[in-house]
Amino acid sequence: MTPYSRAAILAVGSELLTPSRIDTNSLFITEQLNLLGIEVAFKTVVGDDREELANAVRIALGRVDLLVCSGGLGPTDDDVTREVVAEVLNRALVEDERIASRIRTRFESRGMTMPDINRRQAMVPVGARVLANANGTAPGLWIDDGTRSVILLPGPPRELKPMMMSLVEGPLGERAPGLSLVRRVIRITGRTESHTEEAMRPLYAEWAGRPVPIAATILASLGQIELHLSARAASREGADAALEAASREVSEVIGLDVYSRDGRALEEVLGDLLIARALRIAVAESCTGGLVTSRLTDVPGSSRYVDRAVVTYSNEAKIELLGVPAALIEQHGAVSEPVALAMAEGIRSRAGANVGIGVTGIAGPGGGTAQKPVGMVAIAALVTGTSRSRTFSFIGGREQVKFQASQAALDMVRRMLVV
Amino acid sequence: MTPYSRAAILAVGSELLTPSRIDTNSLFITEQLNLLGIEVAFKTVVGDDREELANAVRIALGRVDLLVCSGGLGPTDDDVTREVVAEVLNRALVEDERIASRIRTRFESRGMTMPDINRRQAMVPVGARVLANANGTAPGLWIDDGTRSVILLPGPPRELKPMMMSLVEGPLGERAPGLSLVRRVIRITGRTESHTEEAMRPLYAEWAGRPVPIAATILASLGQIELHLSARAASREGADAALEAASREVSEVIGLDVYSRDGRALEEVLGDLLIARALRIAVAESCTGGLVTSRLTDVPGSSRYVDRAVVTYSNEAKIELLGVPAALIEQHGAVSEPVALAMAEGIRSRAGANVGIGVTGIAGPGGGTAQKPVGMVAIAALVTGTSRSRTFSFIGGREQVKFQASQAALDMVRRMLVV
Repeated sequence: MTPYSRAAILAVGSELLTPSRIDTNSLFITEQLNLLGIEVAFKTVVGDDREELANAVRIALGRVDLLVCSGGLGPTDDDVTREVVAEVLNRALVEDERIASRIRTRFESRGMTMPDINRRQAMVPVGARVLANANGTAPGLWIDDGTRSVILLPGPPRELKPMMMSLVEGPLGERAPGLSLVRRVIRITGRTESHTEEAMRPLYAEWAGRPVPIAATILASLGQIELHLSARAASREGADAALEAASREVSEVIGLDVYSRDGRALEEVLGDLLIARALRIAVAESCTGGLVTSRLTDVPGSSRYVDRAVVTYSNEAKIELLGVPAALIEQHGAVSEPVALAMAEGIRSRAGANVGIGVTGIAGPGGGTAQKPVGMVAIAALVTGTSRSRTFSFIGGREQVKFQASQAALDMVRRMLVV
Repeated sequence: MTPYSRAAILAVGSELLTPSRIDTNSLFITEQLNLLGIEVAFKTVVGDDREELANAVRIALGRVDLLVCSGGLGPTDDDVTREVVAEVLNRALVEDERIASRIRTRFESRGMTMPDINRRQAMVPVGARVLANANGTAPGLWIDDGTRSVILLPGPPRELKPMMMSLVEGPLGERAPGLSLVRRVIRITGRTESHTEEAMRPLYAEWAGRPVPIAATILASLGQIELHLSARAASREGADAALEAASREVSEVIGLDVYSRDGRALEEVLGDLLIARALRIAVAESCTGGLVTSRLTDVPGSSRYVDRAVVTYSNEAKIELLGVPAALIEQHGAVSEPVALAMAEGIRSRAGANVGIGVTGIAGPGGGTAQKPVGMVAIAALVTGTSRSRTFSFIGGREQVKFQASQAALDMVRRMLVV
């Protein structure tokens, strides 16, 4: 069979043209297609509108040989994908009695009668392959049109994803172009985008000339830089090996600022380090308001190393709950490294933990002064006898300052544990 | 001037065709266009690819009279939007010396010399209007082509948003079709999607027949339901008034389960209630791991009512930090309403606050038993002398259980304060 060369993705649904909803199915579809070596040439979103949809299908079929559509397969009048695609491809729609009876059974198993409108979901374009839906009533459809194919998937992710996966293992995989495109994300914190870019430039040049070339894109947000690497090779394993080698080279160039080469979040990386050393951690937060601890406890099994935390917004709370001396606050101010250190030690010793974190700062938008502006955050960490503290100046709004401070606090402990 | 009738949005950038990045600029652009009464007919994403981009521009200009593009205006060879659009519209590109000097000054003000590649950003298609960029080097461009217009905006949101806003107040606003499309989100918690839908159905029918008809869509996720209402009227004020009336009717039908009719998040609603009553709150969290407090402190000014919080993962921490009697944990188990109440009272009294929250549960994926399965969470709240407690059974993964529990805890206090 002719392998596909290029795909387009079409998301159908008027809600996807409003200011509050976005098509995210295409991310999963793209990942699966890329693994097969099929690149996505463009993506389109149209509403539940017959004319726009028909037009988008026609345009896509003129430019790619694989079109993957999601959404618009439901039972209501708004759901027009099935009919419009059949029309564009000049196929009649015929009721498939097996589908109708499967939907009927699904309703009856929940003690309900199938509403008549659901019969629409049993209509199949002549010559189409029916794709079973384990998690919903709408079956998917696969229609070949010469060497081109159109795949219709239901919109809900829990219905779409397993259906897409079984296509990858089956008919889609059989028409893969052969070169697997694999991507890997390397996460970096503690340096700027331009410093990262500068350090990486020689590698970029070298990577481009390799037998399995590595392409790289840099994506920066406040507190985090991601390097997205991709490689195309005859097998997934070959691409993986090339990416593994490349990601080691990134670590050599960027050093400790790389905290993850395998997709793990910073809190997972730190959790694994704490488990490996059998350490327990306790946290005292002021301006981050619980975010450091909430991130730590997002990780399954974190109760093995998180004992307790306190959020001490007021000076009284810092004194009462952590034993921070009032005189220390008086002398240095609540936002200072000595107070951050006293907070870290206060929670560490009270919890009987090995690791303590203290964070105190000004998240904004109010509360800043000329000496201590919004975004100034003092962070301290204690790890079995050694301590570290640093004062940061973060930019951005309140939530961004909170995030950057939580990132810097988790990262400070990570750095103390890896060396 | 002829008003625009329909728009298309085109996002340019190869990273937007990978599995890890999505175009979100279109949400903001859509909102602004809708406010002017301009509907979005479709959205397209293309990579940094001259042919695909040219094709997408041609297709859009054949179907709509306003095309808003974002991205691809940077200084590198990858940034081709300016050139491709000029080519499709048959315009020569001419260097604009004022732009070049503005970019040069921007670099010099930071002690740097303008790299030669940035000259590309000073190229302007003949007849185009230049849109100033307060937050970056790439100016936007506005090109009229007969009655159609193409707007080119830079990709970074902090550059794009102010530029789009000034267009709405200026030239875009002048060609608004006159019927403002305004949307409003009503947020609901504490009931299921189908119960909400059932209660709303009579209103939907009535709304459709009004002089200013109200359209509604329901969007449900774990712990939260959103009703998206939209109205189209001769003025923004007219649409706002119709939506205000409709949102009151929703409150009459759904009652206290509506927590926000004005876009405020639950933590903001609760914060405003606490401020209005001059109450201070303290939180004791176990399975939510700091998330309740982190959400409370996401709100600017929350230091006025958040005093302190503790995260007590271990039983020892519950006993030591909150004074929960060991016998109570022994008798009822750590995940129980009596323990949640003791946690709430422990933190409330220690903080000298008026309001206390206690949350204890099993976030999973491990730690569940037959009697106390994953997702079981006991929540208690104390508000100036009155108390409430309840045991919930949440579904979903760890982060979803954490979110639903934080939502239920904040909502419990809200309900105690509004009645």
